[in-house]
Amino acid sequence: REAAAGFRALGAEVLEDAPGELPLAKLAAEADLVVAIGGDGTLLSTARRLVGTHVPTLGVNLGKLGFLAEHSADDLRRYLAGDTPTRWRLSPKMMLQVHLEPLHGAALAPAYALNDVIVSQGVMTRLVHIDMDVDGEHASQYRADGLVISTPVGSTAYSLSLGGPILGQGLRAFVVTPSAPHTLTNRPIVLEGTARVGFRVSGPVDELALVVDGQERLELRAGDRFTVCAAPTDFCLIASGRSYFDILRAKLAWGAAPRLNDAAG
Amino acid sequence: REAAAGFRALGAEVLEDAPGELPLAKLAAEADLVVAIGGDGTLLSTARRLVGTHVPTLGVNLGKLGFLAEHSADDLRRYLAGDTPTRWRLSPKMMLQVHLEPLHGAALAPAYALNDVIVSQGVMTRLVHIDMDVDGEHASQYRADGLVISTPVGSTAYSLSLGGPILGQGLRAFVVTPSAPHTLTNRPIVLEGTARVGFRVSGPVDELALVVDGQERLELRAGDRFTVCAAPTDFCLIASGRSYFDILRAKLAWGAAPRLNDAAG
Amino acid sequence: REAAAGFRALGAEVLEDAPGELPLAKLAAEADLVVAIGGDGTLLSTARRLVGTHVPTLGVNLGKLGFLAEHSADDLRRYLAGDTPTRWRLSPKMMLQVHLEPLHGAALAPAYALNDVIVSQGVMTRLVHIDMDVDGEHASQYRADGLVISTPVGSTAYSLSLGGPILGQGLRAFVVTPSAPHTLTNRPIVLEGTARVGFRVSGPVDELALVVDGQERLELRAGDRFTVCAAPTDFCLIASGRSYFDILRAKLAWGAAPRLNDAAG
Amino acid sequence: REAAAGFRALGAEVLEDAPGELPLAKLAAEADLVVAIGGDGTLLSTARRLVGTHVPTLGVNLGKLGFLAEHSADDLRRYLAGDTPTRWRLSPKMMLQVHLEPLHGAALAPAYALNDVIVSQGVMTRLVHIDMDVDGEHASQYRADGLVISTPVGSTAYSLSLGGPILGQGLRAFVVTPSAPHTLTNRPIVLEGTARVGFRVSGPVDELALVVDGQERLELRAGDRFTVCAAPTDFCLIASGRSYFDILRAKLAWGAAPRLNDAAG
Repeated sequence: REAAAGFRALGAEVLEDAPGELPLAKLAAEADLVVAIGGDGTLLSTARRLVGTHVPTLGVNLGKLGFLAEHSADDLRRYLAGDTPTRWRLSPKMMLQVHLEPLHGAALAPAYALNDVIVSQGVMTRLVHIDMDVDGEHASQYRADGLVISTPVGSTAYSLSLGGPILGQGLRAFVVTPSAPHTLTNRPIVLEGTARVGFRVSGPVDELALVVDGQERLELRAGDRFTVCAAPTDFCLIASGRSYFDILRAKLAWGAAPRLNDAAG
Repeated sequence: REAAAGFRALGAEVLEDAPGELPLAKLAAEADLVVAIGGDGTLLSTARRLVGTHVPTLGVNLGKLGFLAEHSADDLRRYLAGDTPTRWRLSPKMMLQVHLEPLHGAALAPAYALNDVIVSQGVMTRLVHIDMDVDGEHASQYRADGLVISTPVGSTAYSLSLGGPILGQGLRAFVVTPSAPHTLTNRPIVLEGTARVGFRVSGPVDELALVVDGQERLELRAGDRFTVCAAPTDFCLIASGRSYFDILRAKLAWGAAPRLNDAAG
Repeated sequence: REAAAGFRALGAEVLEDAPGELPLAKLAAEADLVVAIGGDGTLLSTARRLVGTHVPTLGVNLGKLGFLAEHSADDLRRYLAGDTPTRWRLSPKMMLQVHLEPLHGAALAPAYALNDVIVSQGVMTRLVHIDMDVDGEHASQYRADGLVISTPVGSTAYSLSLGGPILGQGLRAFVVTPSAPHTLTNRPIVLEGTARVGFRVSGPVDELALVVDGQERLELRAGDRFTVCAAPTDFCLIASGRSYFDILRAKLAWGAAPRLNDAAG
Repeated sequence: REAAAGFRALGAEVLEDAPGELPLAKLAAEADLVVAIGGDGTLLSTARRLVGTHVPTLGVNLGKLGFLAEHSADDLRRYLAGDTPTRWRLSPKMMLQVHLEPLHGAALAPAYALNDVIVSQGVMTRLVHIDMDVDGEHASQYRADGLVISTPVGSTAYSLSLGGPILGQGLRAFVVTPSAPHTLTNRPIVLEGTARVGFRVSGPVDELALVVDGQERLELRAGDRFTVCAAPTDFCLIASGRSYFDILRAKLAWGAAPRLNDAAG
């Protein structure tokens, strides 16, 4: 594509990966730059494939502004033309590592998430019980449809729609937000990024899974346990220098717009 | 003003009341129409002054579209020119009657509200206890900063900002929504319009009052009791025939606009 | 069982239906009383099977107090012994009728719900768009995981866990509560019981269904439309006379219990 | 009192301060231990008076378990008897510094908060506009009754009652939670503890103030600006070693108790 040609014209060695099949983490060890073209969804899968590396990644959106894919195609063209904005900077993003230990069978290889890990049920949802311990200490029992464990990046995604807070992008923290809690006292809790959080699901479960970044699915059964902590490496996103709050306002109309019936006054 | 002249030109007898000092309920008994010019705030105070009458009221907004003041000055001019929109219709609005019975001293004359009655504290808020009974039966104890009792009209005002639901405009019901509940299990409750709801405030109260439609203030002291029920008459608003949902969408961006970070998917 | 024997001893003709297979609505036309023994779940399915009839139903719980199955086995024994509490009374409960009109294929027979009708997704939830019209008028577009349409009875069930209000049991109304709304402005709305509400689902749907009272499942596809209104008959529950607010407090700790960190004060 | 006698019996020099009038920060420079006897409220005021020092503080509750006053009178007696629990440890708590710069008049000395800083209105609340900038960058405009800026310690107090999240006690962060936001899109945001957050209030304000830990009041006028950041020193609380989650569960019934109507299923 155009971008590949542009980089080559600058003398760079370029590998294209339209189908997303290259062993990205291996190649990245020798790469100076990854350019992910698409949208935020593309960035999410790229980030997961780059865990273990420190290669800077440039996110280019083909349509509307993304939370992660902040750069437009024009930005990329200007960059290729040698016009690197001085405001660009590396913005490391904490990722999650999730480790599933089934009650029956061997533990799986860890999965990684840039947005969130979700405990999700099938169509016929039932109340499940999810015990949470933090650094080995019993913390809470959720009685809910499911729950979301979200990074600061993912705090504006699914967690927000369940009533979770927005997390500042510089925090090393994650938030656990229950979905449809049947105990009315369960609230989102924000935990330190150094915490190791264990979960175990029980109850009469029909169809249940861990969903990673909305893209990968790992089956869960009653009695299964999984552990969430920070991933060993951050995702090295090249940020445009645009203010996070600008993006929030543009994408969420956060702190903008609709007013209530404010007649009285 | 222009409107008064227009009505007079049509041979109508017109009383103007810019300062809002006429005994409106008395005069209204002989009036065929009240025209309230201003905004939703003007309509609220007009409605309270018209309790006990059945005179149709036309709400004209001088600026932006209101929830109640739906008609523009141009609409009024066209009406005066004989061009009555066929979609106009009477839309009776349930109002609240609130009766304060102080622990010490005589009961006050009832007050009326088209939007809401609010238990509100001064700057140094403290946890107050508010016992609620419904039709003589103990219902709940709120431990909160205060609470709102709102009509369907008022459900899009203060109650909404505290997490209350939107009530359909045809419902005869009101909603009780606590403000900053310290018991996490207190939720808004929607009660039938025929209910008589009693409240009693206790606890270490500094400065506390009932606020009616955001415009009138009645002092409350610990031990005071007040009762809320439907007012004896509805407010007879002339509606433009515009859909309530259109107004909701226009004023609240309800069901429109801002989207979350929906990358994943 | 014991109850059947007891009724027979009183000279009544008794039909037992442990497997739940009798054509209940047909038989009910000639019955004077239905006794549903189990829990609230048993009452839900009994109510759906009795739509079209007006036979009083007594709900007996075998374990803990239910919202619907208010009577204990001891209550039933006392009743059989001729000791009918004078506080018992008929408490008609509004039910919902849901009519699914698939985009492709014939419309289905209506289904009925005593608690709620839920638009529910499979494990890999995606943002769906649900257009709602009320009495033929476009009302809102939800962008959410799904939504719940709930009766007053069901307002303390799933809808509550999504932030919906509690509806007084005397209201003829239902509440529409979105699940994980991606537009932050979508709030629960309470509609009159006389409303006919149409919904159409669009968007990139994987696995989607209507779930009725948490017990029946009707598949939904993009483009399908369904209509919800009040069912033609109410469910004629025999209530114990116990206050609804007592049940709320007992079951939800509503207006009771947990306090926040209220140090400052 | 008994405690003072106990310490003296051990040969310690003891200063008593029942009326709370000693220049605590000055004296603390030479003290080895502060014992605050009362409840969480006592701890809040003690913490504010100790800013600038690093003296360990033991919180003793005379009644029920506190979030901060974790130790009972018996614990203190055992400690005086030489029986120091090995699980006791220093648990530094981040505090807030708030600096008010009135539009007219000189800036005030900074105030400090262990729980929260609240923008609070008088009885006749009106919609106020609060602009927030973070590290000099415009972040959001709140249209609300007020807002709360809370530490992790305070996250279970007033902020929680407004829908804010619980913050893990090891986080260096604070949460900004609006009260009765009239824009439906304003959500709690959790900011890094290193952030400097500026606020300016505008709008038709009647009676408005900053309330610090629910105990101190600073008048605010339209146009006034205030800045919030971490205080220069932490409050050095002696923790009992009891799990924070145990306290949450004991005090908030967090993750315990009340269940919804879960009939269906």
